[in-house]
Amino acid sequence: MINSFDTSSALFTDLYSLTMAQGYWKEHKTGNAVFEMFFRRQPFGGGFSVFAGLETLLEKLRDFKFSESDLAYLKSLKIFDQAFLDYLEKFAFRGRVWAMDEGTVIFPLEPLVRVESDIISCQIIEGMLLNIINFQSLIATKAARVWLASGKGSVMEFGLRRAQGPDGALSASRAAFIGGASGTSNVLAGKQYGIPVMGTMAHSWIMAYESEEAAFQAYADIYPEHPVFLIDTYDTLKSGIRNAVKVGKVLAARGRNFGVRLDSGDIHYLSVEVRKVLDGEGLPDATISVSNDLNESIIQTLTDAGAPIDSWGVGTQLVTGGSDSAFTGVYKLAAREDEAGNYIPVIKFSDNPEKTTNPGIKQVWRIRDAQDSAVADVMTVEDRPVGAEDGEDIVQKGKRYAFWHPSGDYRHFYRDIDGSAEALLKLRMQDAVLCADHPSLWELRDRVRKGLEEFDASYRRLLNPHIYKVSVSQKLRSLKLKLINDHLGDI
Amino acid sequence: MINSFDTSSALFTDLYSLTMAQGYWKEHKTGNAVFEMFFRRQPFGGGFSVFAGLETLLEKLRDFKFSESDLAYLKSLKIFDQAFLDYLEKFAFRGRVWAMDEGTVIFPLEPLVRVESDIISCQIIEGMLLNIINFQSLIATKAARVWLASGKGSVMEFGLRRAQGPDGALSASRAAFIGGASGTSNVLAGKQYGIPVMGTMAHSWIMAYESEEAAFQAYADIYPEHPVFLIDTYDTLKSGIRNAVKVGKVLAARGRNFGVRLDSGDIHYLSVEVRKVLDGEGLPDATISVSNDLNESIIQTLTDAGAPIDSWGVGTQLVTGGSDSAFTGVYKLAAREDEAGNYIPVIKFSDNPEKTTNPGIKQVWRIRDAQDSAVADVMTVEDRPVGAEDGEDIVQKGKRYAFWHPSGDYRHFYRDIDGSAEALLKLRMQDAVLCADHPSLWELRDRVRKGLEEFDASYRRLLNPHIYKVSVSQKLRSLKLKLINDHLGDI
Repeated sequence: MINSFDTSSALFTDLYSLTMAQGYWKEHKTGNAVFEMFFRRQPFGGGFSVFAGLETLLEKLRDFKFSESDLAYLKSLKIFDQAFLDYLEKFAFRGRVWAMDEGTVIFPLEPLVRVESDIISCQIIEGMLLNIINFQSLIATKAARVWLASGKGSVMEFGLRRAQGPDGALSASRAAFIGGASGTSNVLAGKQYGIPVMGTMAHSWIMAYESEEAAFQAYADIYPEHPVFLIDTYDTLKSGIRNAVKVGKVLAARGRNFGVRLDSGDIHYLSVEVRKVLDGEGLPDATISVSNDLNESIIQTLTDAGAPIDSWGVGTQLVTGGSDSAFTGVYKLAAREDEAGNYIPVIKFSDNPEKTTNPGIKQVWRIRDAQDSAVADVMTVEDRPVGAEDGEDIVQKGKRYAFWHPSGDYRHFYRDIDGSAEALLKLRMQDAVLCADHPSLWELRDRVRKGLEEFDASYRRLLNPHIYKVSVSQKLRSLKLKLINDHLGDI
Repeated sequence: MINSFDTSSALFTDLYSLTMAQGYWKEHKTGNAVFEMFFRRQPFGGGFSVFAGLETLLEKLRDFKFSESDLAYLKSLKIFDQAFLDYLEKFAFRGRVWAMDEGTVIFPLEPLVRVESDIISCQIIEGMLLNIINFQSLIATKAARVWLASGKGSVMEFGLRRAQGPDGALSASRAAFIGGASGTSNVLAGKQYGIPVMGTMAHSWIMAYESEEAAFQAYADIYPEHPVFLIDTYDTLKSGIRNAVKVGKVLAARGRNFGVRLDSGDIHYLSVEVRKVLDGEGLPDATISVSNDLNESIIQTLTDAGAPIDSWGVGTQLVTGGSDSAFTGVYKLAAREDEAGNYIPVIKFSDNPEKTTNPGIKQVWRIRDAQDSAVADVMTVEDRPVGAEDGEDIVQKGKRYAFWHPSGDYRHFYRDIDGSAEALLKLRMQDAVLCADHPSLWELRDRVRKGLEEFDASYRRLLNPHIYKVSVSQKLRSLKLKLINDHLGDI
């Protein structure tokens, strides 16, 4: 049935994950593996991203299950053996999942999620994991940029009608809130996530009445609590604002406030003119909302110009990302267990050097100075990998540390750890049990806001930002160069 | 619960639709209205779009219902009266819906869907209608462009991991198939829609083995039916293709075929070199698939250059639209019933002239010449609107007809209808009953392919296409100018 997408189905995966899974199963390759999810470049030409979607992912992993009809469908494909389908019938995800805190400010190449389990489990969840984290991180990042551009103002997410499918709207409402929005127009997102729901009126409301004034009056009669009149149906300055003032003055006389919304024309010019009219009519408290295909660049231009705007309705570009519509997250094998139970670090080269992976089971450390400003992140290898140099690879306060460029070339610097070093990947789930309750969406939004403050403003610049340093440790660099050399010998 | 998005919920709407609905209900504005959905500009800089999502929309309209928990949530917002909630509890969508055939080649400003019902029903479904049609039309259009660029070749949709949320992937798989794809990697889309599922292998498969050759061999042993080896994990030419040939030759000797997939590096150069190796080894039937952030421009460049590529795996840009991530569909009031039961055509101006709507209840006619080539579309007003000139406004073969530019300016031309004139909007649903069974996805894909053939190649050009003419009839033009004049008098 078309109508109810069962997106919690375990079939929400790429076919090759299942064919590879059957392959591993037939080959008795059931040893553990470690996969890591990371992303390749910052979206929107920006200097940071926001990690989002973790709660959604963990809930889906916990409940991951092939239903009877899923198995019947797989059987119909005639590429899976009955014995493997029997295996899938009993399948539940039991791996360990480490991840950064949801809402963390993140940078390319850093593992955001790390999964340790038998290789079949790791492989089967790939598509779902990437889908959820990629999309929610894209939108949380966009929302943070919009929120910064608005001068940390009031951003309403109005994207449902242009979102990429029903869940494109729902997930986007969640992620937009985490990233900085104040609320959503999407009622289902309100119900599902408890996000404040907001809205004004459509042009059709005005067109359904004999006159614009009658339409505003009717609305104010029904919703006297700060109604927001849409004033561009016929002519913003000649008609809309005049009728809004007529109706609004009566409200003001009764001690009520109101607002207007601009949805077309030159938003800067109109907001200034409308503000003048409102102030001239003794309505300084009346608010101005704007909409009309806004994004962070347009909003920044308007706030820089001092446009008198109280709140921003942002739809399409907030919930789809606009011209950057996908987050570049990938999920790669980092290490596999050998028969003796040791983890063998692995590497992928590809014919694009920037696609060469960092091998081994990694941790990410955020280095802060004595003033608690973030100054660099560094990736280390956990001490289990065979082939790594001896000694623990952790970052501690008080020590001097080498930070190497992840490309493996000569670039590096030394730094004393004079503030703190925080390990960002934490255990979140083990044996289908969550390690902690999920924070509320308000807590996540606060985390994003505080997280952004840790970085110098140059890293938060919307265009041509300063590039925050993500380094690899001496030990990880050595491991990477060793594996590259080993393989160069092979080919 | 986060895990199962109930996207069939009637709450999948913007809050303002429900507050306006309560407003209409309180004001006893229960007369009929006609809303039309149209779009404003072609995506991707192209010359055509493909209408998709109709089946999904009609199914959701038929089952549209507020659940008990939906109503409890609305009550908790404290903005809706109990009597209105009681009304919603009994609410079902009973309007009449006209639409173009799903899979029709479409152009800006033309009504694609027309809804006639009490104004409350029309308003409540706005967000859902736009969400479904906008997204599926965006992706069907992208898929048609990709398919044309591939020389009408074999396009596999691989987008799940970068799609905008779980349903962003599902809806996209459906729309991509309609638009021209041969299959999807998304297993759930296979189950849900019957779309053929396809896939190759991930880099992790190769990395999970001691050697690339061992990995290919193991895969071929399990899946001897045309396995496709991913050959860029270490080095495409020095390692990948050599190992693929070793394993493939054994398959070929047993009468089996195989393929290779390129996923990085210069696809043109590598495909030529790989083809040489395969042919040189006596493996002319071995196929070459490519992937790596492809879009229609890259594919066109490769096909123009004669790259020997047999199939195309297209992910991110196919399922998100890439740099154009939203379809510009809107849903506007076209006419409302007065107390005497007459339909009053309405118009919206806004402060952007291109946002001024075409008033009245409209039909769209596709005019074909004697050779059955589409030469122009024209919008007419149905004869019910008050204020329109007398006489039926239909287009018939054998008559001479005036085609006016929709802007309302002086541009126009005359043309004899020497071929045919087809009315594109047809009744699809009445009283919650569908007027016909849904066509299969294969029929829809055929319709798109045949539809594209009706247009001169200049309209199908991917960049800077010839702009197909969408005109308004004399009668519609007169109505529009009359309403504009009436309003100019008001303001």
